[in-house]
Amino acid sequence: MAPLTPRLVVPIDVKKQPWEQKIPLHNRWHPDIPPVADVTEGELFRVEMVDWTGGRIRDDNSADDIKFLDLTITHYLSGPLRIVDSEGLPASPGDLLAVEICNLGPLPGDEWGYTAIFERENGGGFLTDHFPSARKAIWYFEGIYAYSPQIPGVRFPGLTHPGIVGTAPSVELLHIWNEREKKLAETSPETLKIQKETAGWHKMANEAARTIPGRENGGNCDIKNLSRGSKVYLPVFVEGANLSTGDMHFSQGDGEVSFCGAIEMSGFLELKCEIIRGGMKEYLTPVGPTPLHVNPIFEIGPVEPRFSEWLVFEGISVDESGKQHFLDASVAYKRAVLNAIEYLSKFGYSKEQVYLLLSCCPCEGRISGIVDSPNAVATLAIPTAIFDEDIRPKHLRGRPGPKLIRLPDLLSCSSDGHLPVTQDQSGRSEP
Amino acid sequence: MAPLTPRLVVPIDVKKQPWEQKIPLHNRWHPDIPPVADVTEGELFRVEMVDWTGGRIRDDNSADDIKFLDLTITHYLSGPLRIVDSEGLPASPGDLLAVEICNLGPLPGDEWGYTAIFERENGGGFLTDHFPSARKAIWYFEGIYAYSPQIPGVRFPGLTHPGIVGTAPSVELLHIWNEREKKLAETSPETLKIQKETAGWHKMANEAARTIPGRENGGNCDIKNLSRGSKVYLPVFVEGANLSTGDMHFSQGDGEVSFCGAIEMSGFLELKCEIIRGGMKEYLTPVGPTPLHVNPIFEIGPVEPRFSEWLVFEGISVDESGKQHFLDASVAYKRAVLNAIEYLSKFGYSKEQVYLLLSCCPCEGRISGIVDSPNAVATLAIPTAIFDEDIRPKHLRGRPGPKLIRLPDLLSCSSDGHLPVTQDQSGRSEP
Amino acid sequence: MAPLTPRLVVPIDVKKQPWEQKIPLHNRWHPDIPPVADVTEGELFRVEMVDWTGGRIRDDNSADDIKFLDLTITHYLSGPLRIVDSEGLPASPGDLLAVEICNLGPLPGDEWGYTAIFERENGGGFLTDHFPSARKAIWYFEGIYAYSPQIPGVRFPGLTHPGIVGTAPSVELLHIWNEREKKLAETSPETLKIQKETAGWHKMANEAARTIPGRENGGNCDIKNLSRGSKVYLPVFVEGANLSTGDMHFSQGDGEVSFCGAIEMSGFLELKCEIIRGGMKEYLTPVGPTPLHVNPIFEIGPVEPRFSEWLVFEGISVDESGKQHFLDASVAYKRAVLNAIEYLSKFGYSKEQVYLLLSCCPCEGRISGIVDSPNAVATLAIPTAIFDEDIRPKHLRGRPGPKLIRLPDLLSCSSDGHLPVTQDQSGRSEP
Amino acid sequence: MAPLTPRLVVPIDVKKQPWEQKIPLHNRWHPDIPPVADVTEGELFRVEMVDWTGGRIRDDNSADDIKFLDLTITHYLSGPLRIVDSEGLPASPGDLLAVEICNLGPLPGDEWGYTAIFERENGGGFLTDHFPSARKAIWYFEGIYAYSPQIPGVRFPGLTHPGIVGTAPSVELLHIWNEREKKLAETSPETLKIQKETAGWHKMANEAARTIPGRENGGNCDIKNLSRGSKVYLPVFVEGANLSTGDMHFSQGDGEVSFCGAIEMSGFLELKCEIIRGGMKEYLTPVGPTPLHVNPIFEIGPVEPRFSEWLVFEGISVDESGKQHFLDASVAYKRAVLNAIEYLSKFGYSKEQVYLLLSCCPCEGRISGIVDSPNAVATLAIPTAIFDEDIRPKHLRGRPGPKLIRLPDLLSCSSDGHLPVTQDQSGRSEP
Repeated sequence: MAPLTPRLVVPIDVKKQPWEQKIPLHNRWHPDIPPVADVTEGELFRVEMVDWTGGRIRDDNSADDIKFLDLTITHYLSGPLRIVDSEGLPASPGDLLAVEICNLGPLPGDEWGYTAIFERENGGGFLTDHFPSARKAIWYFEGIYAYSPQIPGVRFPGLTHPGIVGTAPSVELLHIWNEREKKLAETSPETLKIQKETAGWHKMANEAARTIPGRENGGNCDIKNLSRGSKVYLPVFVEGANLSTGDMHFSQGDGEVSFCGAIEMSGFLELKCEIIRGGMKEYLTPVGPTPLHVNPIFEIGPVEPRFSEWLVFEGISVDESGKQHFLDASVAYKRAVLNAIEYLSKFGYSKEQVYLLLSCCPCEGRISGIVDSPNAVATLAIPTAIFDEDIRPKHLRGRPGPKLIRLPDLLSCSSDGHLPVTQDQSGRSEP
Repeated sequence: MAPLTPRLVVPIDVKKQPWEQKIPLHNRWHPDIPPVADVTEGELFRVEMVDWTGGRIRDDNSADDIKFLDLTITHYLSGPLRIVDSEGLPASPGDLLAVEICNLGPLPGDEWGYTAIFERENGGGFLTDHFPSARKAIWYFEGIYAYSPQIPGVRFPGLTHPGIVGTAPSVELLHIWNEREKKLAETSPETLKIQKETAGWHKMANEAARTIPGRENGGNCDIKNLSRGSKVYLPVFVEGANLSTGDMHFSQGDGEVSFCGAIEMSGFLELKCEIIRGGMKEYLTPVGPTPLHVNPIFEIGPVEPRFSEWLVFEGISVDESGKQHFLDASVAYKRAVLNAIEYLSKFGYSKEQVYLLLSCCPCEGRISGIVDSPNAVATLAIPTAIFDEDIRPKHLRGRPGPKLIRLPDLLSCSSDGHLPVTQDQSGRSEP
Repeated sequence: MAPLTPRLVVPIDVKKQPWEQKIPLHNRWHPDIPPVADVTEGELFRVEMVDWTGGRIRDDNSADDIKFLDLTITHYLSGPLRIVDSEGLPASPGDLLAVEICNLGPLPGDEWGYTAIFERENGGGFLTDHFPSARKAIWYFEGIYAYSPQIPGVRFPGLTHPGIVGTAPSVELLHIWNEREKKLAETSPETLKIQKETAGWHKMANEAARTIPGRENGGNCDIKNLSRGSKVYLPVFVEGANLSTGDMHFSQGDGEVSFCGAIEMSGFLELKCEIIRGGMKEYLTPVGPTPLHVNPIFEIGPVEPRFSEWLVFEGISVDESGKQHFLDASVAYKRAVLNAIEYLSKFGYSKEQVYLLLSCCPCEGRISGIVDSPNAVATLAIPTAIFDEDIRPKHLRGRPGPKLIRLPDLLSCSSDGHLPVTQDQSGRSEP
Repeated sequence: MAPLTPRLVVPIDVKKQPWEQKIPLHNRWHPDIPPVADVTEGELFRVEMVDWTGGRIRDDNSADDIKFLDLTITHYLSGPLRIVDSEGLPASPGDLLAVEICNLGPLPGDEWGYTAIFERENGGGFLTDHFPSARKAIWYFEGIYAYSPQIPGVRFPGLTHPGIVGTAPSVELLHIWNEREKKLAETSPETLKIQKETAGWHKMANEAARTIPGRENGGNCDIKNLSRGSKVYLPVFVEGANLSTGDMHFSQGDGEVSFCGAIEMSGFLELKCEIIRGGMKEYLTPVGPTPLHVNPIFEIGPVEPRFSEWLVFEGISVDESGKQHFLDASVAYKRAVLNAIEYLSKFGYSKEQVYLLLSCCPCEGRISGIVDSPNAVATLAIPTAIFDEDIRPKHLRGRPGPKLIRLPDLLSCSSDGHLPVTQDQSGRSEP
């Protein structure tokens, strides 16, 4: 008889604070963070996790918690887990760790999530200059479906996934990260400063990497299709692989445009690992100056929600001021998102509502053309079935145009204030 | 009884040169290019078209035709067509033109296509510094399937689409284009110079816009899902809309990365138009300094080939030199493509073969994360069913790694030569 | 260079009668019908075909042609084709013939079809006692889409397929057929009588089998998913295989319930064959008293239209009189179809309209439960996207029920007459 | 704030016997079975259930429990639930009850199931004369996937669903059932005899209907697509609707051919109900002698596992003895299943293994043709991706045929014995 139930290796009590959990959580990448458990290749195991903020966002009527959130603490991750083979030998640097997501979901008793716009001065987002004030929507789950009182007329099945799955970096890889991100860190210290922790953590904290960006180890990839039945092939950089996960999303659109843009929640993963010995060399070729410049590979299986009809918005690499950019997919995607926001706002939604909706619904963001100088073309495809009315363009013969009834709006803050324009981090802007 | 057969409004004889066709073709966007036919709203009609080069690429054994192709002439477009309603009134500026693609395909007797890498000094492409020499693959069609003697082990159904569907720009819109693209034009005159034509065309030629980039009027969007059963909602800028189409693709991957990257072919479209009077105002909101800064909308229907299993490659906005870029989706996608090329080349393909394959097979390019500073995350998803062997990573217990048999390669040129490094057009590079 | 265009081996001129075609057609299965052409393994070739009646149904305003159709002549088939391998050796009894459908469609210039209810006394159908009078609907094609003036509010993409693909039976197999169908033939002679032909055909005509039923050789399987990109593995019973095809359907629902129930049309097939030597023995095991009691195998590929939302009707094996049948899937399916007809007729359709629609739209008929004594459960699933309004059940708070506007109806005959009840052929009815 | 967690209205403790559960279960349909709880329209609630046998099949090494199972007790159902609207008014006869399946799955701690062949003398199945001896396979779940040590080389995601969802019959409907099934009951008393219960249940037990067949109230429909995100519209026959559910299946093939053919398990449902007042009249039209002769309607949503490639087996209505049946879909489906069993058994499986696999994997059983006299055509489509090797027919050039390695087989009994041939219940057989 096989073991029937996934072994719970990281339990979470959502009534407790992150630092009160039975198994300690962590919020930085570092090779020396000690594993919290061993997991054997082939074994089915369960990891639970707090939401990325560790419970600091509440199901209440204000976005103040979003406005003043301390972002230097996040994300809270479960793990690391030390992966060993059936003979007890740990995964080794150079191996490939195949992690299958056998199941996942919200934690029982905590079936809700939130999506938010960060204040421009505290977190921002892809369209922060258009939507600089903090806003929040609460989502409730009805099994596989989510709905929000703040964004009525919409209900969709979740393509639930962990935002973060990653292995620990080696000292060498960590050094590469810190070096290459330093220049950006100097111009925006908040983005990369290290969290203060207890004394023992001092050296590690000064070296450790933030969890915000996805990197060579996987990490915060925010790949929305990494759901039930998917597999991740992660490079192994330290003995035992030291696998960590977190940042569970009930649903997310490609790009996660509002930054706190997925339906963020606590949750659980049921995982199964395989170690492919020597797999990094066999399957991953570095693209960059060192053998560590690799990226994970994914497999997507047959159990995604499928939609047969899509409304697609296009953007080209001309920005909102009319300025031409050269084959810049980010600018093109921004314009595609803006076009979609403008369009859907004609159906009775505020623009902030649509911005959040496009952050979290199962929309697809595509790089359609990246070679037709000077315009990159990006597209945003929205499944029409998530709306309770037909949102496609129509002949207007005698009928009114798109519906203009004002719907309930997002949760806002006690005051919004006047906000200056964000400075571009890329160094590409003209002075 | 309804009319049974689509009316042929633009016939093509592939044995003739573009300028010898019965109905004249055009290769620039200009409001004064005269319509070649009238089409009535609701009518099913057929437009045939040459391939984008007008037949200059041959089904032979060399890539020399690619290497020396005169790119200033392209694309050859069929049209413009003047669209009128059932009472004979033409579409007007401010209307929305809904164009349904009822059917499409290669021209009978010309069932083949090609995919190519341009020489870095003549056209280039997304990865031109990695693959600077001209290469070519020929594809033959077996009904809905394509295969290439130069890229064996692969066969896939086409998600056939026109690369270009667009309306004519107004004088004002044309002026906007010329102004904003001028700076780029000055640094790379070849890209935007205007083709010399006959005397009558002189003024127009000097004002007219190149067809390379997608713009507000649609144009060269290269959206691979715009296939059978899709609908495009195009803004109307001039009386009659003046609809043009061309650049038929048997199949294309998101991004069309090698530039001449789709399976390029001649072909036909069966179309049906509706005029949504006043639809621009009702449905499109400008994003930019003028009311003309809009983009088309698309509807995707239920008839695409669907694949249930995908292998996904990820890239982050760190370039090949290891340099960090700030949330740059183009850099992230480039790394995702490079990762995929390295991976698949382990299965016996040359890197050039994979580069071309990813340009033209139905792979999906996604902007997965665009907010997790400093790394944008882009993904490239490849349907595993297009290969005749299993290309997923596997345990290597005792077995050899990925297949290493050398397969036939792409067509090359008589000599490749030494090529300098391309200069970045974006102005973002360091000196 | 590969041959580019499929070789046309059976051309059809739709302006001519079946017996006037350049290549003779046939309408019975017999091993001695001489092949009309040779086809080589691996070669792409094109077969054209008349509609199953050979042009006797017209695009006019009456169902009289349906009412008085001589059914003893049908179906007209194209072929037989003798299949040889690359060395010229023909397929042999015991081989398996893999036939790939690379492409297919209506014949250019003949883009229309029809669906009909046969008169109970002349052909009948699955629900002939409910709908005993001849009716007809004409369908026009707009590329991949079909619509009918007689069934408004509906438009759908075709899952186009040949109703008939089959190899020639051997003398022995033909004898088995004639023996086992004889008893039924005696009680309903019209069903199985042999067509009178010219003198030379006399012996063959007396032995040859009707084309109505699907049998061991494939034949009239009416499998609606056998569309573009599919493959059929047919047993070979005679030297050369002698492949015939016909009965092209633009679209059909599972069951083809009204008998003349697909959207019947003329058309073309582009095919490619492989001979799997000895494949019958390797892959097919007889289920029955002789080695000839086998059935073909099919492969369905990734290019079907896909619908994400379905409305499903259920039937159990209790007939319209309330009588219990024992695990009878035919009775259960009949009730599922009747339930669907009743339901959809509440949306303004006549029951005959729905009967025809369910015969030809891409609905799925499933055997859901076949073991829960005494009730078989069958289901009929209809893709909701084919309707231009939402046909799902809804809360009626204050709103009217389903739409009751009377729509244009089917084409009927000059007089319907009084018709007796059909006698059950199965011998299962009580006296 | 909305209630976050589904209210648990029927809890199950799998360590206890069915009659020891906190909330009583029931195993017959009767209007007088008292509701165990009230549920309000719009409320999300959770119902747990034992497996259909109430825990009598064990995860052990013998099929003896299957061989000697007392079938007169089954199925154990959870409920009935009395459904009321927001004002506390119960659903009434003539209403339609829309039940949405928001989520479902195995019970935590009990993640396994079984599939079995019943002994011919005790339960039987669709192919009982071919496979008369009791056999059993155990399935273990890894999240959404199932695998069985007894059927190696296969793993698939569950399309999990309740076999039974139904409302209570009225006295009148119950009377109709008992009358129409009586004749069959007399010839096979075991099938319909009433379970003996406690004294108070005596009258009810004598009248109550078995739960085996699906009927007008829904019941044991075994519709495999009734999974997450689906909706059932059930007719209401008694005040409160009295909704019962049970017979959870991790996965099932169309037809559930081995009778105990799904992957049977305990489980939970998360449901939400709506009452459509007067909906029976608005949406359901009786097909039969009384207004009660109706059937439920279903809606299937976008979250099913989707497979893009299928291998399809065909059957015609000629039985294994070679005898012709008239348009009999049950016979045709039987032959399709037999053909599939023969084919797959060439890949190293025993025929019993394939019989069970086709009972429980997500294969589709279709009524393809039901009008082409005398042969019904049924098809069985198997998604190729569930196998870990390619099971499609192939050229045999030099290679061996299908794999012939003998795999581990099903669990069997201590002795099989000699079994007589089952008597046909339908009365259709010749003497």
